Amino acid sequence: MIKLNYENAFVSEEKLLESAHLVKAAAAILHAKKGAGKEYTGWLDLPENYDKDEFLRIKEAAKKIKGHSDALVVIGIGGSYLGAKALFSALKHNFYNEIEKPKIYFAGQNLSPTYLKDLIEVLKDKDFSVNVISKSGTTTESAIAFRIFKSLLEEKYGKEGAKERIFATTDKSKGALKSLADTEGYETFVVPDNVGGRYSVLTAVGLLPLAVCDIDIDKLMEGAYDAAIKYANPNILENPCYQYAIIRNILYRRGKDIEILANYTPKLKYFTEWWKQLFGESEGKDGKGIFPAGVNFTTDLHSMGQMIQDGRRNIFETVLNIEKTNKDIEIESIDEDIDGLNYLANKTLHEINQKAMEGTIMAHVEGGVPNILLSIEELDEYNMGQLVYFFEKACGISGYLLGVNPFNQPGVEKYKSNMFTLLGKPGY
Amino acid sequence: MIKLNYENAFVSEEKLLESAHLVKAAAAILHAKKGAGKEYTGWLDLPENYDKDEFLRIKEAAKKIKGHSDALVVIGIGGSYLGAKALFSALKHNFYNEIEKPKIYFAGQNLSPTYLKDLIEVLKDKDFSVNVISKSGTTTESAIAFRIFKSLLEEKYGKEGAKERIFATTDKSKGALKSLADTEGYETFVVPDNVGGRYSVLTAVGLLPLAVCDIDIDKLMEGAYDAAIKYANPNILENPCYQYAIIRNILYRRGKDIEILANYTPKLKYFTEWWKQLFGESEGKDGKGIFPAGVNFTTDLHSMGQMIQDGRRNIFETVLNIEKTNKDIEIESIDEDIDGLNYLANKTLHEINQKAMEGTIMAHVEGGVPNILLSIEELDEYNMGQLVYFFEKACGISGYLLGVNPFNQPGVEKYKSNMFTLLGKPGY
Repeated sequence: MIKLNYENAFVSEEKLLESAHLVKAAAAILHAKKGAGKEYTGWLDLPENYDKDEFLRIKEAAKKIKGHSDALVVIGIGGSYLGAKALFSALKHNFYNEIEKPKIYFAGQNLSPTYLKDLIEVLKDKDFSVNVISKSGTTTESAIAFRIFKSLLEEKYGKEGAKERIFATTDKSKGALKSLADTEGYETFVVPDNVGGRYSVLTAVGLLPLAVCDIDIDKLMEGAYDAAIKYANPNILENPCYQYAIIRNILYRRGKDIEILANYTPKLKYFTEWWKQLFGESEGKDGKGIFPAGVNFTTDLHSMGQMIQDGRRNIFETVLNIEKTNKDIEIESIDEDIDGLNYLANKTLHEINQKAMEGTIMAHVEGGVPNILLSIEELDEYNMGQLVYFFEKACGISGYLLGVNPFNQPGVEKYKSNMFTLLGKPGY
Repeated sequence: MIKLNYENAFVSEEKLLESAHLVKAAAAILHAKKGAGKEYTGWLDLPENYDKDEFLRIKEAAKKIKGHSDALVVIGIGGSYLGAKALFSALKHNFYNEIEKPKIYFAGQNLSPTYLKDLIEVLKDKDFSVNVISKSGTTTESAIAFRIFKSLLEEKYGKEGAKERIFATTDKSKGALKSLADTEGYETFVVPDNVGGRYSVLTAVGLLPLAVCDIDIDKLMEGAYDAAIKYANPNILENPCYQYAIIRNILYRRGKDIEILANYTPKLKYFTEWWKQLFGESEGKDGKGIFPAGVNFTTDLHSMGQMIQDGRRNIFETVLNIEKTNKDIEIESIDEDIDGLNYLANKTLHEINQKAMEGTIMAHVEGGVPNILLSIEELDEYNMGQLVYFFEKACGISGYLLGVNPFNQPGVEKYKSNMFTLLGKPGY
């Protein structure tokens, strides 16, 4: 259950209710699939309607990969990268690749030759598989990486052996990757037509890599399913998802055009990156949109803290609070209290971290930064499934409130077409 | 040699020259050490005046650590963390800890019990040393981590053995950590009084961990030394450092209050975090300051790209371009051009990455985002030493242009005092 506390958001319940009709209208159009970008709202019903047969195949493929591979290379960029990376980081060991198997590596998410060469060096003596994720199969970054890793696998295992180690998540029927997969006999999974990249983490795009590292994808879907029901409640006072959407819109209209998502555990670093894509790509258009920024506290209190406390008052902060932890450390008293920490004796690090959070919220609010506090019980599959759906839905509503199509990304094409021209791509 | 290209910054040479007197005045006050925060401008002469005896001791200590340790745990937060992390990430293998030794881990940079427990688990069977970095020794995060790792070392090696594995970088004469180090007999290194945390990477704070992973700290200092001479040139037309400071100030005065630092290699991810601390903590005060944000391209073109292209026009972009690479990959032609990449055959990945950069700059500029292009020749110690000094000096000048003290951080105390009250610290 996600709890939203807006008592420090400088938005009263009255103010919230004044805008309730806007949210209701936005939600109605979203649910009726009649708004802008309606053809990409498949994520809305995904937790109920997902392909159950494919879901079983994902688990089988994960088992196969775990059986024959020391490492899985996940090739994708944007929505075909960030969802899996976000939940993998949130739910697994902080040093997963150093102690668990199969190790998970990401590739095709940049164009750095050094990164690719370094990764190839690391994989040299390892048995590995590849999950290539691309709707079209022609996205430059991931297509280049896949060419390279496909050829490495074929050198190492032969064409027949490589076939057993390449898993393609792509369009159900058309496109370069789908054709190649059919010709070569790779197992394929589907990027649904009605789910855009940044909304795709609960499809095979995210689920296969997550299943490979033993993340419980049933629980993830269960969380999303419960969220889909809970956050369909039209009563705004009972629906934190709608509250989040309207409060950030009210703050934006007051000139708060930067939203900072803050966490207190390094495990949420990439979830924050996922959130930045979700909101930035959905809202940043037509000269509008809240600029999404992330901070990882308490680390960044010692870097961005000053700016948040005392800089321009054009920001608001949304804090992701995780109430419980299953790993904790108790501070012990020492003989001579030379570092002055004995006052913390018998407190746990989690308690101290929580107090840091409370103290920081108080300080930033006092400094004039509106605060929205989002709490989940613990960092597990069920809660993260809820949170994914919560943000996806809040983002769709937010886009409609802002008057943009939250499901397209026309601006992303411009640099690509320039790049293709510079590279001499036929037709550009 | 750092090259600055401002032809796409929407700032003419004429406009630049109009403001030249402001930069000259700011530079004069900085060099004369007469401005706000003058007691923290020791970084200005550091590349010439650094302690040469300590520099040799740093190298000796690094040798000792490499001799007896599989891993080094660097304990610090803020400026005692980001500088080393930034240059370590920029200059070493992308998967350093998986293939090199001693492995480098960071601790005390957050309050997450899960992070600490996970790190302790990873270190279980490894011989390790600790470099604890704290001016006072009482910073909550790093003091807690040090209590824990000190006790782990003493359990593992006894008090005498631990002594050979603990290296303290702290105040030259006073404070909790200095006292403890003297009592216990740890080797110590100095955080100079006249260099603030975010300006400290070229002191023992950054240099010891960097030397442990075989980064050439002589070359680093040499780069900074050359930069100190080059960027003292009062002729603004010949001084890219001053140009950077004045252009960002002009853009800020035009309402561009978010600066995005963009790179095209994952190796600069943490250098960007270092830069965010440097500028954010220096400028974000008195209700003023440019909000510093970072993007790692091409990765984030698929997340933040839409917002940059088409969102609110309150942003400008500074691109860090690395002209050459020493690791590259050539794209090969394949028989059936199923992924449509054959037009790239015989091009290298670095060339493609460069074209992505050029195409993106064109697109964003066309979209109304002013662009500053900063180029260095390659990603090595000498160039990074230059770049560190370049940004440090530009930041000092920027702060004076903005009318703030760029060397203090009063806002950071507020959350701490709230936190101490909540935790029941004596005196709060």
